[in-house]
Amino acid sequence: MINNQYWAMSSHPEGMPKKDNFKLVNEILEEPQFGQVLIKTLFLTLDPYMRGRMRPGPSYAPGLKKDEIMTGEIVGIVEISNSTKIPIGSFVRARSGWTKYSVKSDSEVIILDHSSSRISTYLGVLGMPGLTAYHGLLEIGQPKAGETLVVSAASGAVGALVGQIGKINGCRIIGTVGNEVKAKYITEELGFDYAINYKKENIEEKIKDFCENGIDIYFDNVGGEITDVVLNNLAYKARVIVCGQISQYNAIKTPIGPRNLWSLIRTQSKIEGMLVSEYGDKKNQVALKRISKWILEGKVKYKEDIIEGFQNAPDAFQKLFTGENFGKLLIKVDDI
Amino acid sequence: MINNQYWAMSSHPEGMPKKDNFKLVNEILEEPQFGQVLIKTLFLTLDPYMRGRMRPGPSYAPGLKKDEIMTGEIVGIVEISNSTKIPIGSFVRARSGWTKYSVKSDSEVIILDHSSSRISTYLGVLGMPGLTAYHGLLEIGQPKAGETLVVSAASGAVGALVGQIGKINGCRIIGTVGNEVKAKYITEELGFDYAINYKKENIEEKIKDFCENGIDIYFDNVGGEITDVVLNNLAYKARVIVCGQISQYNAIKTPIGPRNLWSLIRTQSKIEGMLVSEYGDKKNQVALKRISKWILEGKVKYKEDIIEGFQNAPDAFQKLFTGENFGKLLIKVDDI
Repeated sequence: MINNQYWAMSSHPEGMPKKDNFKLVNEILEEPQFGQVLIKTLFLTLDPYMRGRMRPGPSYAPGLKKDEIMTGEIVGIVEISNSTKIPIGSFVRARSGWTKYSVKSDSEVIILDHSSSRISTYLGVLGMPGLTAYHGLLEIGQPKAGETLVVSAASGAVGALVGQIGKINGCRIIGTVGNEVKAKYITEELGFDYAINYKKENIEEKIKDFCENGIDIYFDNVGGEITDVVLNNLAYKARVIVCGQISQYNAIKTPIGPRNLWSLIRTQSKIEGMLVSEYGDKKNQVALKRISKWILEGKVKYKEDIIEGFQNAPDAFQKLFTGENFGKLLIKVDDI
Repeated sequence: MINNQYWAMSSHPEGMPKKDNFKLVNEILEEPQFGQVLIKTLFLTLDPYMRGRMRPGPSYAPGLKKDEIMTGEIVGIVEISNSTKIPIGSFVRARSGWTKYSVKSDSEVIILDHSSSRISTYLGVLGMPGLTAYHGLLEIGQPKAGETLVVSAASGAVGALVGQIGKINGCRIIGTVGNEVKAKYITEELGFDYAINYKKENIEEKIKDFCENGIDIYFDNVGGEITDVVLNNLAYKARVIVCGQISQYNAIKTPIGPRNLWSLIRTQSKIEGMLVSEYGDKKNQVALKRISKWILEGKVKYKEDIIEGFQNAPDAFQKLFTGENFGKLLIKVDDI
């Protein structure tokens, strides 16, 4: 019997999720049964998609019910094992949710090789955000050398990698960010060609300056005004990957904007939604090998924004939507 | 020397094109030179895309300048020939514009086989609108038996054929139209499963009624509110073909509507712009053979809305945007 704590959704948020939409629940976990393991969470990842799960009504995955544990992936260490496949002390990743401990069947758990990478990277650049960036850009975006690629939320977990993979593929890269520190980071550290600070600069003017032959690929993490401007500046046969719409997630009503699908006829372009879960194991294996190699070669850099303490998860979650966090947002739950 | 009359754009319209945006010009045409023919226009086609050409600023084709002849295709008969390739009396199609007579090089002219079809069909079901419907639906839409296809402007030159080709491919077809006569026409004559009268019925309710498993394919000729509703009701991996946005063409400012690209992520769908000029001769030959065969077999019906008299072209053009015309809109310019 293990004393555990987890964060549940206590009510559906209206607008920005507040601390009182969450509650910390104490529970007693049963020991793992045959084929199961007990995992101590080391890091919990916080991602924008979680806001979607807090919405009543359907999304691409079932929504959370009141008092249900917050959904999410963790990396952790196996403290008790009743599985022949997963020894005690294994580092693992699992969809355990916002919890300090979890009991999982061995089929639900992925063993990680902690020797070659920091364990936290399996939630970021070598995890779901990394695969999202890789498949979204390469499968839908089909980047070609010399093309112009615009990435929104460019210093974020997905956007930063999109830009760098675009660069490896020979594209000109323009990223949008929310402050000057992030602007400097993406241009000076990550090798983006230009940064646009959407909070201070005129997006339309800057897009026209930096993309005078139009935008060949737009990797959309944000939606809203930036997307409107991009759609008006597409190149011939442009590809728009809709990965996230973070500017819209806390909206209480559907926001409105220009109806500009006409731009798709004019330029013969397409807009396509992407979900990382659409890509299978084989493609994921290739992707992770390549990303790891690029990291070793110094062609891909990543940044983590690690908040200490499980109790801080709800407050930290808000930072995703205010633009306060910088890099992959993680909660450090416990030491090894 | 031939006395000719043509319609020019005398000013860029604001909103709905009015008669005073056009002027009738008298000119004297030179006799055709070597390799040229003189064509007497029999029918002139009026199409929504022409409104785009009247706009100042770039589109996918250069915009008309003030006093320039209105752009457009005609079918006609060769009255004088200085070409070894095109005998006098040939029925031909050419991009002559809104004109009674034109002199064209033989390379700019397509000879038509008048024996097998009505000459006017080469501007409609066997012309640009027919190829638009065929390629847009089959190449981008990829219809599969059992899927649900929604077509807007469903009794129009493009929409009517889209629905019928969808039916041949085993889809359930829902069309939107602007009055009860057209609703009856598409269901009773063309074999659509359902019609929605967007002027009288609640589009959202009807879409939910008729498409309870979501919309697999949307062929968008209209844009605006219908498109907004459709995007909120897409099925998994839906395809949206953006062919026209007639509801927006006369807007003075960019209209606004819901920002709902989120639906593309949720359903893993795509929206793609289509232009018939993207498809080459080989594909067009196959398309026209198939459409002709379907007409002979009674699987494809078409309707023409023929206005008599060249002088009526500007007034007739307005009818495209008010929903008054019914079927492929043509001006009968002269008899054989």
